[in-house]
Order: sequence, then structure tokens, then C-alpha cells
Amino acid sequence: MRVSGSQNMTKSNKTASYQAFIDLIGAQNVIQDDDPAQKPFLEEWRGLYHGRTPLVLLPQSTEQVAAIVRLAQETSTPLVTQGGNTGLVGGQIPDEDNRQIVLSLKKMNRIRTFDPVSASLTAEAGVILQHVQDYALKHNLFFPLSMASEGSCTLGGNLATNAGGINVLAYGNMRDLTLGLECVTASGEIISALSPLRKDNAGYDWKQLLIGSEGTLGIITAATVKLFPRPKGQATAFIALDSPAKALALFTLMRRRAGFSLTSFEIMPRFGLDLILTHIKGARDPFKEPAPWYVLCDITSLEDQDRAQTQLQSLIQEGWDNALINNAVFSQSEEQRQALWLLRERLSEAQKLEGGSIKHDISVPLNTIPDFLHKADQLARALVPGCRPLPFGHMGDGNIHFNVSQPVSMAKEDFLQFWEPMTESIHALVTELQGSIAAEHGIGRMKRSALALAKNDAEMALMRRIKAAFDPNGIFNPHKIV
Amino acid sequence: MRVSGSQNMTKSNKTASYQAFIDLIGAQNVIQDDDPAQKPFLEEWRGLYHGRTPLVLLPQSTEQVAAIVRLAQETSTPLVTQGGNTGLVGGQIPDEDNRQIVLSLKKMNRIRTFDPVSASLTAEAGVILQHVQDYALKHNLFFPLSMASEGSCTLGGNLATNAGGINVLAYGNMRDLTLGLECVTASGEIISALSPLRKDNAGYDWKQLLIGSEGTLGIITAATVKLFPRPKGQATAFIALDSPAKALALFTLMRRRAGFSLTSFEIMPRFGLDLILTHIKGARDPFKEPAPWYVLCDITSLEDQDRAQTQLQSLIQEGWDNALINNAVFSQSEEQRQALWLLRERLSEAQKLEGGSIKHDISVPLNTIPDFLHKADQLARALVPGCRPLPFGHMGDGNIHFNVSQPVSMAKEDFLQFWEPMTESIHALVTELQGSIAAEHGIGRMKRSALALAKNDAEMALMRRIKAAFDPNGIFNPHKIV
Repeated sequence: MRVSGSQNMTKSNKTASYQAFIDLIGAQNVIQDDDPAQKPFLEEWRGLYHGRTPLVLLPQSTEQVAAIVRLAQETSTPLVTQGGNTGLVGGQIPDEDNRQIVLSLKKMNRIRTFDPVSASLTAEAGVILQHVQDYALKHNLFFPLSMASEGSCTLGGNLATNAGGINVLAYGNMRDLTLGLECVTASGEIISALSPLRKDNAGYDWKQLLIGSEGTLGIITAATVKLFPRPKGQATAFIALDSPAKALALFTLMRRRAGFSLTSFEIMPRFGLDLILTHIKGARDPFKEPAPWYVLCDITSLEDQDRAQTQLQSLIQEGWDNALINNAVFSQSEEQRQALWLLRERLSEAQKLEGGSIKHDISVPLNTIPDFLHKADQLARALVPGCRPLPFGHMGDGNIHFNVSQPVSMAKEDFLQFWEPMTESIHALVTELQGSIAAEHGIGRMKRSALALAKNDAEMALMRRIKAAFDPNGIFNPHKIV
Repeated sequence: MRVSGSQNMTKSNKTASYQAFIDLIGAQNVIQDDDPAQKPFLEEWRGLYHGRTPLVLLPQSTEQVAAIVRLAQETSTPLVTQGGNTGLVGGQIPDEDNRQIVLSLKKMNRIRTFDPVSASLTAEAGVILQHVQDYALKHNLFFPLSMASEGSCTLGGNLATNAGGINVLAYGNMRDLTLGLECVTASGEIISALSPLRKDNAGYDWKQLLIGSEGTLGIITAATVKLFPRPKGQATAFIALDSPAKALALFTLMRRRAGFSLTSFEIMPRFGLDLILTHIKGARDPFKEPAPWYVLCDITSLEDQDRAQTQLQSLIQEGWDNALINNAVFSQSEEQRQALWLLRERLSEAQKLEGGSIKHDISVPLNTIPDFLHKADQLARALVPGCRPLPFGHMGDGNIHFNVSQPVSMAKEDFLQFWEPMTESIHALVTELQGSIAAEHGIGRMKRSALALAKNDAEMALMRRIKAAFDPNGIFNPHKIV
């Protein structure tokens, strides 16, 4: 089904076709393959994936994107669409063959319209997530998508990966925040379904398939997203407890009481706090005694700060009364809130400073989390004695980042040799528990073969039929996902 | 692309093939075409659509459904899947050719599993919506999907139409309430993606396409749905005001303050209240003076009744202070709350007793609602002088049921002659305002040609490619949607 790029073209044909791409959008919007300015587009930030490309195209409009796609069809040129290049599974990086053109949407970064009555805005794919957040706040509204990379990731990338982050519990994933899309199809046509409508059942909701398709089915050029009332108060607690089972019981209790007001519920083990205290300047342990596990959670109020704080304190009291909690601290100011969140937000950075790590972005049904954590820990330690699992993440969503640090005395390269067998065994456990091997980071290049293992044949066949229906000649981000 | 049913079969072939369907699931699960018990499956409740069928099949398991689909493929037999037969656009009714088999999922009505920790349950497609609601309440949880037909519509029908209803404002449409699906594909394979996961990006999210596809892409046999904390308090207000513009300003104010606690915001004109007072026993006008427009709204609290009431009263006070409101009454008891809701819930019934009506289920961007209401009223009255528009519905979702009652002195049949020209002109206005011609009732048979008018060619072509990818031989609910 896939056309193998330009491999049948002669060299001069190739050069002519590349020149045609340059002519379409002007040399000022192209970075050619002898230019070192290409580098930031060809390497993923952890250095796990590298690629080559004849051209990085930086179109400035949807019409330019459509023209590029039409030319790509004519010349059988594969296109790898890229946003902020913060993806973690290699989806945004071309391969090494120097035939795939990188289509960066960075220059399409306008907020086109804002509608305070519908509480929505329409922005282009290349706008930085933080820009959307800030824009909403300036208008006394709130865009809840939030994650560590928000200062550089783009809305288009968030859509292409159906991004998650720290506010999913109350507000949902990127899919849930999306009302309308504009996209360019494989035939180079523009479909504009930008819309603030909250109820629309006029035909198949194809835009749902584009969301989370990592650039393999079409090119998302703009989106209309939901905004929410701006919270007026937010209270944070950092809680010490004995076990994931107690954390889960606490979560269940808090959600039943607080509903949508419980906006975050994160878990981490003592090892995580140890790494933060070792590597992150300004971090300090909120408690005198160490505990095996910690929870960080937020209660948000639309009314005021007092109400958020009162509600959080009464929930924690109930946790105490039910013997779920060893100790807890509350933020009394925004500064204290930031200090508590630092203990969670900088975990990845702290772990990176501890040497090599093998990472898993998985989700499991909530009631299996204690079981998962126990068994995954055993599997990892059995495979690499001395390795140090650091499972942390969005417990309320069932989403655990099961990241394993290398043994202290092992060379990083030696440890990373275990990536495949470790990942296989963790994914097998996840599949057995009916979880997902790709919770919020996507499939990309990294998990393509793992996906085929995790899904049954009928489902994989359906995904391939979908790919063929949307992209019959296979020019969109080849060899990713399916 | 479509195969034209069994038209190339001889009569005895047909009979043999029908017998094979009967053999698959047993005669006790089949209603044959000489049996008057077929009737409830072949007529839509308003009498707008009638069909014929050789067999009504009532399978009892997903495996039986899969076997039926495989036989349907072999014999090129079209299947019309049906739930509670409460749909409003004819999607669930076979045509008059007596070749389409009705596949009723009514006997697949078990709740399979309940998971209090993930706050979800898994139920078969044929379970009645109210059964799901009741089951959740019994476990101190809440399933928010709610609509007039909830006593007879099924979860499968809700999924197939991406149903909306009165709680969309806070909780979303059926799509937003769905976590996982089990379905039977056109090749008769079962894909089980039943799952309570809230974050899952493992490949294309094909289940999103099945939701809202009205039985044309696959057969949904079961689903895992989200449950929510059970509200502890609910306060309702019935508000008199001057205009839709003031109602919109009140909505904006209330949502900014109350966020997810504002669970309903419905609008109706004086004419609606007049019909209720005329036709519905026990209804009474809450006010001494008539007003041109009314709003009914709910504030819900997870804490207690007091809190819901206090919050609602302070919001209404703010509406007063901003000169948006003429008058308002609050429920002081659950009985009073029901009495206020009766004024909204029985509008369709009251309008039916007033003679013929031409109905439109549309949505428009919120800020265009006043403009839409004004222009649509003019269009209707210009086309049929003396007709009486009754626009009501879920204003907070931009979803208006623009239902036009016949002139008092006209024969019903004469008025209904205007269905097509009136619908065309209302839909054209909706399209001009960038709204949707199918907000929550779907496309079915009724709006198939209207859909092709409202969408551009590229989008219609994409929908047809999707249909071909999922159902290459066109056996699923032919001639519906695309």
C-alpha cells in the first residue's frame, strides 16, 4: 500500500522536485540539507532518534500546506509533519534515508479567533501551548492542557498525539478539549471543520481519527478548542502514605467528594523524592520522616482560594480518619504551592541526572495499579539486578510512567541494552492487566512493533484499512503507528 | 460501492438464506415476516417512517451477532441494527423493499461488569438507558445521559447517535461518556476494546468513528461508560426574561461563576408555556405576568442541597443586578423541582397535541443564537403565514429544537407539505451561521441529502472513503448518512 518515496526517481528528477517544493513557498521558508540549521528538526531532545531530510519546509498558511501535499502526491514524496519536536516516541523525526521531507508548522502560529460567549478559540497548529494558556488567562478564561513541555510543544503536536498531562482528571485529554479542526487531506484538499459547536452529529466525526494519529492520516493545520472558567483558587497537598493501595483508596474517597474540583492526583515513590532532593536545587523534604509513597493533589475552586483550601483540608482529614495517610502538608501560598509541585514536575530531569533510564508510558485500570506496581518492580529487578524503578505519574488517570534508572555501578550503555527485553516484559504485564502500552505519548516509531503485539489481528487490520482510506499512497509519516 | 442486497438471488435462494439466519440463533429469537409482532420494529413512533423486513433477528450474544454478520456478508444481505426504536431521523427503520433484515439488540441487555474504583460499568448495547442510570444510583454513582426517551431508548442507540440530552453542558455527549467499545466489524470479527482506561493512545481511535455512525460502519455490541459522583443537591430556577440575548448574557455569567455546577440551561418562548398550560394536566404558570422568553436551569452540588440552592440564588441575584431577568422562581423541594421541569420536558408532547409540526434539530455558535432565532422565525412565517414557531432546547449547548406548529386553521397534511422547503431554508440559515443541521438526533434517512448540501465535496468524499473502509460491501444500514 505504501509508495516507497522517491526511490525510483533519478537524481536529477529528485533535485528538480525539491526545487519545486522550494518554489512553492519561497527559499526563505525552506532549510536545505547542507544547512546546519536543519539540526534542531532532525534530533529528538533525548538523542534517541536521529533522521535526515533533503528539506525542512516551513509553510506560513494552510493553502501552502495544501500545495505542498499536492506536490508530494505527484512526486511520491513522504512528508513528516512536525510541531515543537518534543515528542517522546520518535513520531516527529524522519528516517535516515534522506528522502522524507520535514513539514514544520512552526510558522503557522496565529490565534485566529476568540469567542468569549462560546468560550473557545481557534488557533493554528504551530502555536505554542503556553501561548494558548496565556491568551486564555488574559481573557479571564482557562485552557487546562498542561505538561512539562508546554513552553515549546505546539497545539498541532498536542492534537496529533492526543496529549494528556496533569489536568486530565477534571478536563480530559486533548481530544476532549477539541471542538473543531481544519486539515489537509492526502489529496491536498482543505477541510475546514473549525467550529465552536458542542453538539454536532452531521455525519462521521472523522476529526476524531485525526486526533492522536501522529501525522499519519492528514495534516492538522488549525483547531478550535474549548476554554473554561478561570479558577479562582487552587490548594495543593503533599501527602505521605504507606502504599499504592492506600493512595488508591484516598483517590476514590476524594473523587467521590470533590468530583471535577479534584484536578490533579499524582503519585511517586520515596526513590523519586530522593532523586529530587539530590539533584534539584531548592528542593526540600516536606516531612521529617521518610515514607514509602507520596501523593500530590490539587483542589480547584471557581469561587475563591479559601474554599479550595477548606475543601482540601476536610478531604485530608477524612483520609486521616480512615487511616489512609501518614502525614500531609498544605500549601498556604502560591509560592508554597510551586515548591510542592517542583517535587513532582522535575522528576524526569532529576532522573536524567542519575544516568540511563528505560521508560514506559502506560495506563492500567485503576484497581490494578497496586498489582501493576508490585509486579513491574519485580520484573525489572529480575531482569537487571540493582536497577532502580521510579514509577510515578497521573494515578487518577491510571497513567504511570514506569521509568527504570540504571544500577549505580553499571555503564549507561550496558543498561540501555536491556531496553527491548525490559519493555517487552512490562508491556506484556500491561496487556495482561488490560492496560494500554501508550497512555499519553503515542506510538510513533518506538512502539510500532509493540502495538501489533498488543492488539488483535482484527483491530490491526481495521487500523490498516483506516490508514489506506485516509492516505492511500502512504505519503504521511510513513512507518509510524501502522 | 454498495451491493444491492439480495436482488440477484432467486426466491428459493432467498428463502434458504433466511432459514440459515433462523438456524443461527433459533426460531425463538426471530420474528418472521408474516408475524404481526414485527410491527413495533418497522414503524417509528411518530409514524414518519415505515419499513418492511423478512426477519427481525434478536440475538442474545456478541458471538451470535458476529455469526449473523458473516452470513449477511456471504449472502449480501443488508442489516439494519436497531435499539429501542426511539430515533427521530429514521436511521433504525428498514426500507420498503423487504430485503433488509432488522437486527434488534434488545435481548443483549446485561450489565456485564461494574468497577467502582475506575467509576465505570460495562453494559451490552440493548440495555435501556434508565437501567444504566438506576444501576449507577444504586451504587451511589451517577450516569448523566438523560433525555425524554430514557425509559425505552438503549445504550447502543445512544452510542450509534452520539446522544445528547439535558446534561451535556457539564458532562458532554455520549461520546464523552464512553471509555471503551466492543463491536462486530463488517467481516464478522469481534473487536473487544472494552476498557475503563481514561488515557489510551495505542493506535487509531476507531471507536470514535463508530460512535455517531448510526449502524453504518459496524455493530456496537457493548460499551464501557464513565460514571460520576452522585450529586447531593440540585436546585432549579424558572426565569422570565425579555429576549434570547438576555438569556445568553445570563448563561455566560452563570457559567463563568459556576463552571461544571451549571448542569442545565434550557430556553423556551412564551408560546411553549402556553401550549403546556393548555395541554398538560397539572401544569401551572409560575408567574402572574407573561414574559416573552423563559429559561430553566439547574445548579448541582456534590456537597448538599443547601449549597446548590445558595449558589443558584446568588447567581440569579447577579442576573437581577445586571438587569437580565424579569422574574424568577426557585424550587424549594424535589416536588417543586419536578413541577418546574415538567414545563420543559413535556413540550414535545404538548406541541404534538397542537397539530402538525415541522421539526429541526440544529446547533449554532452561541453568539449567533439571537440572530438565528429572529431570522428563522421570519423565514418560517414568510413561507407559511400563520405558522407558529416553537424554538426551545439546550441553549447552553447552542442546540435549538426549532419546531414549527401548523397554523390553527390549516389541515395538518397541507402544512406538512411544507416540510422540505421549510427545512431547506432553515438549514441554509444554519449553514450560513456555521452551525450544524444535526445536533443530537443524527442524519439517518431524513437528513441524508441535507448533509451532502451542508458539507463540502472534500468532506463528503472523506466520509465515503470511511464508509468503504469499514463496510466495503455496504451491508450495514444502507442509504443512511452517506
